Amino acid sequence: MYELVVPQFAKMLRNLLANLDEAGKYAGERKFEVDVLLQSRLAPDQFSLMRQLQIACDTAALGAARLAGTEKDAPVNADTEQTMGEIKARIESAISYLRGFSPESFAGAAERRISQPRWKGKTLSGQEFLIHHVIPNFYFHITTAYAILRHNGVGLGKKNYLGDMPYREPA
Amino acid sequence: MYELVVPQFAKMLRNLLANLDEAGKYAGERKFEVDVLLQSRLAPDQFSLMRQLQIACDTAALGAARLAGTEKDAPVNADTEQTMGEIKARIESAISYLRGFSPESFAGAAERRISQPRWKGKTLSGQEFLIHHVIPNFYFHITTAYAILRHNGVGLGKKNYLGDMPYREPA
Repeated sequence: MYELVVPQFAKMLRNLLANLDEAGKYAGERKFEVDVLLQSRLAPDQFSLMRQLQIACDTAALGAARLAGTEKDAPVNADTEQTMGEIKARIESAISYLRGFSPESFAGAAERRISQPRWKGKTLSGQEFLIHHVIPNFYFHITTAYAILRHNGVGLGKKNYLGDMPYREPA
Repeated sequence: MYELVVPQFAKMLRNLLANLDEAGKYAGERKFEVDVLLQSRLAPDQFSLMRQLQIACDTAALGAARLAGTEKDAPVNADTEQTMGEIKARIESAISYLRGFSPESFAGAAERRISQPRWKGKTLSGQEFLIHHVIPNFYFHITTAYAILRHNGVGLGKKNYLGDMPYREPA
C-alpha cells in the first residue's frame, strides 16, 4: 500500500510539476499569460485545470491520511490558489506531506473502515477505498490535467506523464 | 495484486462500455454517426478515441498476462476495429480474458522480471511494472477516453467513470 500511494503518487506529482514548467515555457514562447491555462477546461461543465490540480493534491494527501488513520492531522486547504506559482507551491506541499508517511504508517490500513463527509456514514474498507476510490480518482485528475495542457498545445508526451521507470539494464 | 488488476480493471472496462452506450444515445439524439467519435482526439498529435480504447484493453490484458507469466498465451489483436460495435466487442473480450485469472495466477508475480519488446532487454520487477507502468497507463487511457467523450458533449460525470462503490451502510 505504501508503494502504491506514497512514492508513486509523489512521483506523479513531480511529473506534473515538470509538465506545468513546460506549460510556462510554452506560454513564454507564444507570449500569453500562463495563468490563463489554469482556467481552461475540456467541457463547460467539467472542472478547470486549477481545480483538477487542487483535487489531485487532496486525493493523494487525504487518501494517504485516511488510510493511515491520521485524517484529523491532515492539511486543510482553502482552495484559494489563483496563479501558477501558488498551485505549484501547493503541489510541492502535497509531495512533502506524502513524504511524512512510512510503510509502518499503513499497518492495519487494509481493514480500517474509512468514510468521507459526503458518504453520510457509509464506509469502505481501506483496501476497497484504495482500489475503488483513491487510485482511480488520483490518476483521473492527473490525466485530465495533462489532457487540458495537451489540448491547449503544450508539447508533452506520455513519458512526461509517466516519468522515469526504474529499469534494470540487461545483464 | 489480483484485486488491483482483475476485478477493478474489469469494472473500469464495464464502466467504459456503459459510457460508450451513453455516447450512442447522444449521437442518436443529435443525429450524428456515433463512429465519428472514435476518430476524435484532444490534440492533433494525440491518439484518437479508438486507439485509446484499444490500448486500454491491451494494457489490462497484457499487463495481467505479463504479471502472471502467461504472456505467450495472451490474445493478439490486429487493431483493425473500425466501428463502435467492433470496439465494444473487443472491450468485452478483454473483460472475459481478465476473468480467466485467479488470485493464484499472480503467485510470485511481484518478484518476476518483466519486459516488453520496446524495452530492448531492460526489465522491471512485477511490483514495479504494476505500480509504475500498468496502473498509470491503464487509468491514463480510460480517463483520456472519458475526456474525449466529455469534450464532445456526451453527458457523463465522475460517477460514470468510477462506477459503483462497495459501500457498507452505517450500522
